[in-house]
Amino acid sequence: MKAIILVCICLINILSAKAQLMQEPTVNSEKRAVFEFNAPNAKEVKLINLSDEMALGAKEYNFEKSSDGKWILTTNQCRPGMHYFEISIDGAKVTYPGSGHYFGWGRWTSMIEIPDDKLDFYLPKNVPHGEVRQHFYYSTTTQVTRKCLIYTPPGYDKDVNVSYPVLYLQHGAGESELGWTMQGKVNFIMDNLIAEGKAKPFIIVMDNGYATRPGTEAEHQYNPGGSDNLFADLVTKELIPMIDGSYRTLSDQKNRAIEGLSMGGGQALSIGFDHPELFGTVATFSGGGRAKFELETANNGIFKDADQFNKTYKLFFVGCGTLEFIYPGMKGMFDSLKKHGIHTAFSGPLGSHEWQVWRVNLYDFAQLVFK
Amino acid sequence: MKAIILVCICLINILSAKAQLMQEPTVNSEKRAVFEFNAPNAKEVKLINLSDEMALGAKEYNFEKSSDGKWILTTNQCRPGMHYFEISIDGAKVTYPGSGHYFGWGRWTSMIEIPDDKLDFYLPKNVPHGEVRQHFYYSTTTQVTRKCLIYTPPGYDKDVNVSYPVLYLQHGAGESELGWTMQGKVNFIMDNLIAEGKAKPFIIVMDNGYATRPGTEAEHQYNPGGSDNLFADLVTKELIPMIDGSYRTLSDQKNRAIEGLSMGGGQALSIGFDHPELFGTVATFSGGGRAKFELETANNGIFKDADQFNKTYKLFFVGCGTLEFIYPGMKGMFDSLKKHGIHTAFSGPLGSHEWQVWRVNLYDFAQLVFK
Repeated sequence: MKAIILVCICLINILSAKAQLMQEPTVNSEKRAVFEFNAPNAKEVKLINLSDEMALGAKEYNFEKSSDGKWILTTNQCRPGMHYFEISIDGAKVTYPGSGHYFGWGRWTSMIEIPDDKLDFYLPKNVPHGEVRQHFYYSTTTQVTRKCLIYTPPGYDKDVNVSYPVLYLQHGAGESELGWTMQGKVNFIMDNLIAEGKAKPFIIVMDNGYATRPGTEAEHQYNPGGSDNLFADLVTKELIPMIDGSYRTLSDQKNRAIEGLSMGGGQALSIGFDHPELFGTVATFSGGGRAKFELETANNGIFKDADQFNKTYKLFFVGCGTLEFIYPGMKGMFDSLKKHGIHTAFSGPLGSHEWQVWRVNLYDFAQLVFK
Repeated sequence: MKAIILVCICLINILSAKAQLMQEPTVNSEKRAVFEFNAPNAKEVKLINLSDEMALGAKEYNFEKSSDGKWILTTNQCRPGMHYFEISIDGAKVTYPGSGHYFGWGRWTSMIEIPDDKLDFYLPKNVPHGEVRQHFYYSTTTQVTRKCLIYTPPGYDKDVNVSYPVLYLQHGAGESELGWTMQGKVNFIMDNLIAEGKAKPFIIVMDNGYATRPGTEAEHQYNPGGSDNLFADLVTKELIPMIDGSYRTLSDQKNRAIEGLSMGGGQALSIGFDHPELFGTVATFSGGGRAKFELETANNGIFKDADQFNKTYKLFFVGCGTLEFIYPGMKGMFDSLKKHGIHTAFSGPLGSHEWQVWRVNLYDFAQLVFK
């Protein structure tokens, strides 16, 4: 069998694949990203940083044409974390062929991971791993087959008498149900925390935050908040009963939490505080805040009576990057609530509106929720 | 809570996402694909068909610049199925921003799905769905954390006393463990077959066909056959014991099958026929064939004694598209084996070296294996 002749098309594939893989960007010891790209007849090739300026060291770069005809670029120093970018070839905005592709900005987008010398909590380690399950269901709310991702902790299949708390975890605008695992590495964060005994094992449900009302334009999927409660209906009337019916969950209110980032943070606040009968913990990362927080009136006055709030909710958790323009508002909200006696906690790592911040937020949150 | 103000960055994301989504290609009633693309300063935009000519109606197309500055293209009639393509912008080969992105050709690549008026067996339907699980494991063979995908049939979690046969299912060159679900829709094919009572429920294990020997160059991952048996070692010594230890499998030889497409077909033949103690069924789709099949000597003479072969293997299944240049070889092999009395079956739908063929092959194979 050793001499088996693979069909020619395989070899063509292999050679092509190898040639393309040479375009993979690298990160040097100074945390500069290095690109080399084939664009034989282009007049101008740019890298467009879709994050804040310092994430990739500048908002935009021009590639230079080398003597052998390749377009090359070495960026300024980049900030650790995973950053969105695109390239522009004579004005056409596309992904970079050799980079990892992730769903963000409403489409498949390039990202680059800049290693962090100080943080490794989100890297895969040789510890017991949980699973990430694609769970398909026909939604009566939206009348389409939907997919959500479910993280089940290590050992879920081993002892079938154990039941687990559940976190409903939402992505940001333009992203999808893939965000928290592909960009956020939430499964590795949980595996590592559980292995160290720092977090209780729990189930995580990640659905797509967009829901289109049957018979209406697709526009609605970009209006998850506002006057149309379709996504809230989907979560509370359809998703939760399905999850409780399909997995070994602890289905009481105190063992159910909702959290989201950015747009998903607004959804978590809205759904979580509209349904005190369902959720015992509510959390938002970089979303749903206000420039001026009014304790008496914010969120329909839910924080006004701290004792009442604390009887209903075990924890209200707030996360935000220090470099975000919403940081003062989010931190201010937390400070007011803390002073007022609300059960609350805050996670504010260095960073912008970006996944590295939300990874840290999740790492902090996971150690408090369900404790 | 209805009036909650989402942070500005969400709105920017949303608007950007919507603008980009307008570039999504459509397929008209004549099965022509229609593209509209922004490339303001490009001199030349091409669509490059990465499949056979008739898949997308031509090997290459030039986009035309419309009066409003958009680059537009309506292709010739396309063949139903899912086809790989890329675009060239002034010679730079990249993906098409609005299309689905799939891992093939060693990188993320554009694909377009041309609906088939006659076939719907691979579409999601309102039937009970199995799950697709990402299963992470630290591989002692390769000394890295690997990921395989596991299809568990509908109801797997309901009755924990039922055990299932297992199919090990491999992708083609340049693809990954994602291929059989993202491109192949194997989970929907199985869900639909099981709902109709046409196939027995079984578990499917899809690992990545590339394995790099620790301490060697990444080159080895492109040499899965040949003299380095690393991937075979990984499957037989590490993957199978792990799967049998992690899932409710029927772990006897007759309830274990191996199948692959193209490069994966060569791997399935090699591993399956080298390990008669492990596999009761072997299958190849469009791979591992020879131009001239010699019954006496092929595959180390394993087919020579038909009775002996049939005592060991329940089934040897062969699939191939009628338009493939290897079709005469694959069909000739099957005809010889059939005539010789080998337990064999063949699936030869209209099509080239492409996923639509392998979807049909899998649909046919799933109804025979483990019966």
